[in-house]
Amino acid sequence: MQNIYDNDQFYEGYIELRNRSNSYNELLEIPAIRSLLPDLMNKVILDLGCGYGEGCLWYVSNGAKTVVGVDISEKMIERAKDENSSKFVEFINKPIETFTYEEDFFDLVLSSVAFHYIEDFDALIRKIYSLLKPGGQLVFSQEHPVILANKKREGWIRDQNNKKVYWPLDDYQLEGKREETWIVDGVIKYHRTFSTIINTLIRNGFIVDKILEPIATDKAIEQNYRLVNEKRRPSFLMIKARKQNE
Amino acid sequence: MQNIYDNDQFYEGYIELRNRSNSYNELLEIPAIRSLLPDLMNKVILDLGCGYGEGCLWYVSNGAKTVVGVDISEKMIERAKDENSSKFVEFINKPIETFTYEEDFFDLVLSSVAFHYIEDFDALIRKIYSLLKPGGQLVFSQEHPVILANKKREGWIRDQNNKKVYWPLDDYQLEGKREETWIVDGVIKYHRTFSTIINTLIRNGFIVDKILEPIATDKAIEQNYRLVNEKRRPSFLMIKARKQNE
Repeated sequence: MQNIYDNDQFYEGYIELRNRSNSYNELLEIPAIRSLLPDLMNKVILDLGCGYGEGCLWYVSNGAKTVVGVDISEKMIERAKDENSSKFVEFINKPIETFTYEEDFFDLVLSSVAFHYIEDFDALIRKIYSLLKPGGQLVFSQEHPVILANKKREGWIRDQNNKKVYWPLDDYQLEGKREETWIVDGVIKYHRTFSTIINTLIRNGFIVDKILEPIATDKAIEQNYRLVNEKRRPSFLMIKARKQNE
Repeated sequence: MQNIYDNDQFYEGYIELRNRSNSYNELLEIPAIRSLLPDLMNKVILDLGCGYGEGCLWYVSNGAKTVVGVDISEKMIERAKDENSSKFVEFINKPIETFTYEEDFFDLVLSSVAFHYIEDFDALIRKIYSLLKPGGQLVFSQEHPVILANKKREGWIRDQNNKKVYWPLDDYQLEGKREETWIVDGVIKYHRTFSTIINTLIRNGFIVDKILEPIATDKAIEQNYRLVNEKRRPSFLMIKARKQNE
């Protein structure tokens, strides 16, 4: 289990990135995943990979009864307790993979761009299923399979004028570990195909309710022109699913 | 509504292609979509875009009670009646878009690589829903969104030695008409994103049961080495869904 967020260099770089008002998270990922959320009023919520907990506090301020935020990074959980604590939020410093809690407990499990760090997706989904009440919902975002697929981790292919000409898709069916340089070297992610992600949910008792491959609004593109590229290839995949009532 | 299959040059080229024992249809698409089929015993089946009807006869020979095969191409339906007729199969020469039949009539609606020719996917899915019995199933294949997306319709990007280096993904979120040369010029297809395809099914009352992005077996790759590329980028998307019982 990788704990890159406790790497000092990564942590500083990540915080700096997240503090930018024009980050992909602020302008694209967060508005998109929140558009998938049900009414949070009185919901008991689990946030897997909560980072420094700004989401947890937002869920409470939008009506959630209680929120449990889980993150592998000690630094992130420390910061979460400093900046985003609330009597309605419990922060737990544990890897998502080893985290356990009371079964049939949560109304809603949320996770924002964390699942592509998890090697065993089937085990993750089975655990989430057991933690959710019947009819409970799962809403998560991850890097899109077309972003994770290419083992060479090439970015945009550019012409002589450095203009982006296309996104190099390759290795799509070769699932598994991807190593890349993001802030620091050796960041490990796991590629899974679209069908593997969806079928794993269905096979483990979820009904898929909605899928989102977000594009940026014109207003967001004004704030970060690179977001125009989301029309050319999606960065994120978001899924809303529901635990079947037995 | 495009009727390219009645273009003499296209028709001859297509038949020649389909007669090859090592075509993508024979080695990849047909085995994959048939792997998604339920038990056909006594099923009342609709085949949308049945072509020359070899599938319709196969369904009957595998236990289907009756099969209705629909195709826009007069030439295809003629050939279907010559080569694949059966007292249990009714062939109808109509565009999928204007075809109508008794509501709540079919146990199973099948379609093999035809839906990417249909402009209004929402209207198509609504019609299929109305033709299916409650609990009835839809199994279809289409060209994969990563194949249809690129408006320039570029094939594999190759190096100086003509080696395939990657598949050029672009224009993914720009849904709509794609014009390409396949056997003849000016073949019209329609690109839709993954999320549009899945959400259209769900929004119209279907439960998604399985998704398949097939790869070729080693045996198939022996017969057509180009199939090894399916590991690098998927050619087909296949979906199995079910009409919810009201």
